Amino acid sequence: MSTYIDLNSDLGESFGNYTLGLDEEVLNHVTSANIACGWHAGDPLIMEKTVKLCKEKGVAIGAHPGYPDLMGFGRRKMAITPAEAKAYMLYQLGALQAFAQSYDLNVQHMKLHGAFYNTVCVTPELANAVLDGIEAFDLTISLMVLSGSYIAQEGLKRGLPVIQEVFADRGYTEAGTLVARSEAGAFIKEPEEALQRVLQMVKIGTVTTNTGKTIDIQADSVCVHGDNPQAIAFTSYIRKGLEEAGVTVSNFFNR
Amino acid sequence: MSTYIDLNSDLGESFGNYTLGLDEEVLNHVTSANIACGWHAGDPLIMEKTVKLCKEKGVAIGAHPGYPDLMGFGRRKMAITPAEAKAYMLYQLGALQAFAQSYDLNVQHMKLHGAFYNTVCVTPELANAVLDGIEAFDLTISLMVLSGSYIAQEGLKRGLPVIQEVFADRGYTEAGTLVARSEAGAFIKEPEEALQRVLQMVKIGTVTTNTGKTIDIQADSVCVHGDNPQAIAFTSYIRKGLEEAGVTVSNFFNR
Amino acid sequence: MSTYIDLNSDLGESFGNYTLGLDEEVLNHVTSANIACGWHAGDPLIMEKTVKLCKEKGVAIGAHPGYPDLMGFGRRKMAITPAEAKAYMLYQLGALQAFAQSYDLNVQHMKLHGAFYNTVCVTPELANAVLDGIEAFDLTISLMVLSGSYIAQEGLKRGLPVIQEVFADRGYTEAGTLVARSEAGAFIKEPEEALQRVLQMVKIGTVTTNTGKTIDIQADSVCVHGDNPQAIAFTSYIRKGLEEAGVTVSNFFNR
Amino acid sequence: MSTYIDLNSDLGESFGNYTLGLDEEVLNHVTSANIACGWHAGDPLIMEKTVKLCKEKGVAIGAHPGYPDLMGFGRRKMAITPAEAKAYMLYQLGALQAFAQSYDLNVQHMKLHGAFYNTVCVTPELANAVLDGIEAFDLTISLMVLSGSYIAQEGLKRGLPVIQEVFADRGYTEAGTLVARSEAGAFIKEPEEALQRVLQMVKIGTVTTNTGKTIDIQADSVCVHGDNPQAIAFTSYIRKGLEEAGVTVSNFFNR
Repeated sequence: MSTYIDLNSDLGESFGNYTLGLDEEVLNHVTSANIACGWHAGDPLIMEKTVKLCKEKGVAIGAHPGYPDLMGFGRRKMAITPAEAKAYMLYQLGALQAFAQSYDLNVQHMKLHGAFYNTVCVTPELANAVLDGIEAFDLTISLMVLSGSYIAQEGLKRGLPVIQEVFADRGYTEAGTLVARSEAGAFIKEPEEALQRVLQMVKIGTVTTNTGKTIDIQADSVCVHGDNPQAIAFTSYIRKGLEEAGVTVSNFFNR
Repeated sequence: MSTYIDLNSDLGESFGNYTLGLDEEVLNHVTSANIACGWHAGDPLIMEKTVKLCKEKGVAIGAHPGYPDLMGFGRRKMAITPAEAKAYMLYQLGALQAFAQSYDLNVQHMKLHGAFYNTVCVTPELANAVLDGIEAFDLTISLMVLSGSYIAQEGLKRGLPVIQEVFADRGYTEAGTLVARSEAGAFIKEPEEALQRVLQMVKIGTVTTNTGKTIDIQADSVCVHGDNPQAIAFTSYIRKGLEEAGVTVSNFFNR
Repeated sequence: MSTYIDLNSDLGESFGNYTLGLDEEVLNHVTSANIACGWHAGDPLIMEKTVKLCKEKGVAIGAHPGYPDLMGFGRRKMAITPAEAKAYMLYQLGALQAFAQSYDLNVQHMKLHGAFYNTVCVTPELANAVLDGIEAFDLTISLMVLSGSYIAQEGLKRGLPVIQEVFADRGYTEAGTLVARSEAGAFIKEPEEALQRVLQMVKIGTVTTNTGKTIDIQADSVCVHGDNPQAIAFTSYIRKGLEEAGVTVSNFFNR
Repeated sequence: MSTYIDLNSDLGESFGNYTLGLDEEVLNHVTSANIACGWHAGDPLIMEKTVKLCKEKGVAIGAHPGYPDLMGFGRRKMAITPAEAKAYMLYQLGALQAFAQSYDLNVQHMKLHGAFYNTVCVTPELANAVLDGIEAFDLTISLMVLSGSYIAQEGLKRGLPVIQEVFADRGYTEAGTLVARSEAGAFIKEPEEALQRVLQMVKIGTVTTNTGKTIDIQADSVCVHGDNPQAIAFTSYIRKGLEEAGVTVSNFFNR
């Protein structure tokens, strides 16, 4: 049961002439940023600008690699091999690392995006390939992954630094997985309900499932959104509530 | 007048299902490899494979960033800004760095590709942006650039490590630039003539221009090709000739 | 001196998860749409949606081919060959034609985008390649080009249908070209001034240059913008003014 | 039981600086070409060149749309929606149509590529979306699909022209599907055995399955390969054998 919590959000998702997300605003509320690396979103200019913004705001940076599918925003399943999973992750992580290094920053973490995240969290051979990649690249970079997932457990077994993330706005099943978006109980929309759930996860280490049962959950970071003013208000509400409850909201470099 | 010389060649130019270049063969003859980084050629799997091959053969690796123009193989002029030049270079350099690091290798150098190379070598504001990028990223990575070019001189002024490259198969003007491909004297096709010219550049530090004049030239590395058996035979001939003349052929890590 | 005028605007510039432009709104004010074809902007779903919207609103559709440069929104100069200019144009025109045909519509015109437009309008060998492409493809599709440009004149010489476009918000030089964006007099910001200039172009066939001189100009269509509410208000003002002055605002299919 | 047969092969799979396939050679042996449309392979210059070659050799042309996955050559499964399947197919078909039309040719057929082909042949909602697209676009363009597949049957039900293709070099299951590549009996490597199987399919309308059973099969076209000299020799052998057995080898425009 931590008394620390990190708040992470996807950023740097603009591309060329296209703007997405209220990055400057959301950076006032989160402690870690997952920065798109040019495959599902983002481009080198955006990456550089986002890294610079994070430095100014004291937000830790992470690489957010996605599938090579800009048209589908990396949300579509693609059948990639373990060797591809490893190489695609390393390529994008390295690209972000270059911008981090040029601003004298370290990359705190690597969090996969969209369909890449979903698939790799639960598919052993892909998960192991990604873990191999991180392990070969830099043992100080944390893996940010779905709390309780195969990759989280396997990463911990290998002794790698793992950040297990939970969702403030999503329901959980008894298996510890997210309730599917198409099912009842998938979303928690009330800010106060979401806050109470987050507090329970952070302070007690449990979550109430969609069946009413209480299960254990590890909450190192809470994933929040910043693509519209409502999302930012929600995030701000959660953060304020955490702080008022005595939880220290900070990234992992500031502990 | 060095008694050392490096031989460099472009490698890792295959992409997905497409194969280009006789990489395994040319790696037996060169000492430094310029590895395509996925924009004008190459992809993450190819990059990883090429880095691995270079490690096995003891060839130093360099990033070879190009324009975002796979269809044009990075050979077409594109009007990019200094900020784009810097960010595009850093992105690709970082991507290669990830594969290098995952094989416990250091990146020896960064050499731009095609139209990016040609434009940046001679355009001060783009050259300075690229130099800023390298300087901010890693002071141990050498810039491999056209001998005598603006960027070479400016890089040296800044105290950065610069590898000035010459061409075994090209003619030079009195200004120290390459004779345009469309003009007489652009190409040196005879291996023995090419060898004698390279020896003059390496051992004496001069080159005979297309007008018959002798000018100074700095030759730290000789650019050779490996896309066909003739090119490889030519390269092999040059290397053997250099060695027989007492020149040590090696990359910059092995000195 | 026509008493008809067409109003055209660039549409369908969204891409995947990215939204650009107020397409539904601007379609209430223009008579012809230049639809992005997936290279500098747009994707197949957006193209289909935009074609459908145009059909519903009675707006004529045109292909709007750009350079293969999504990251630069097709605004960066690229050195392409005449064969590439022709093939790139045909590829994108055909792609749009498929959606048009699937909605039982004809493509009214082809207008190049950004740097492709600027370069081809004034470069004879590229202009002729594009004209060759249109001529080989379909003699009923009009070329929409800069009024008075080389390609406009050459298209007319060949007997092809040409739509010469003018700009409501831009100043003109004595040579009939647009005043460069960096120079004084480049932009006409006052709606009433812009309207008076358009009326002069449409009804009298002349324009007052940045030097105060009056020169001839052919105005078949006026290019307007729809990327923000101000642009739409400007467009609406011009249209209303034209109609009140007795000019019929319509595309070329409705005459 | 036809006495006509078509031989089809994938062509135009080069891209930019990359060459793939022995197109000029294989065009001497086949009667229909499936031309890549720039997504999984091919580019506008290659498309134009391939269409021109087909015209010279009297080979019918077809569009060969693939997934937006050049890096994976369109062979990787991607989770696309029915709307995307329809729009992606139409986009690429239209693009090829432009080159066909510019050479005064008609497109004979549309055959999907790789993972797009495999998925759509057997997935009703995607198959119906593609059929809707073809139906809306042009009722004279045939669908070339896997013989006996869902999309073949549904296309025929709708009264669309369908070309059912069989494979000379693959084994069949009792269900009429291809034996999986990983299983015994997947490949027929002996040219004479392959020829006898093709003759049985074409003249009798049956095929012997991997279990020894005889099942009905409709063979309108035989898919052959041209990526290496062995494949071309195999194709040439099949074609010669068919002709000697009295079967007329021709595309559907020449009947």
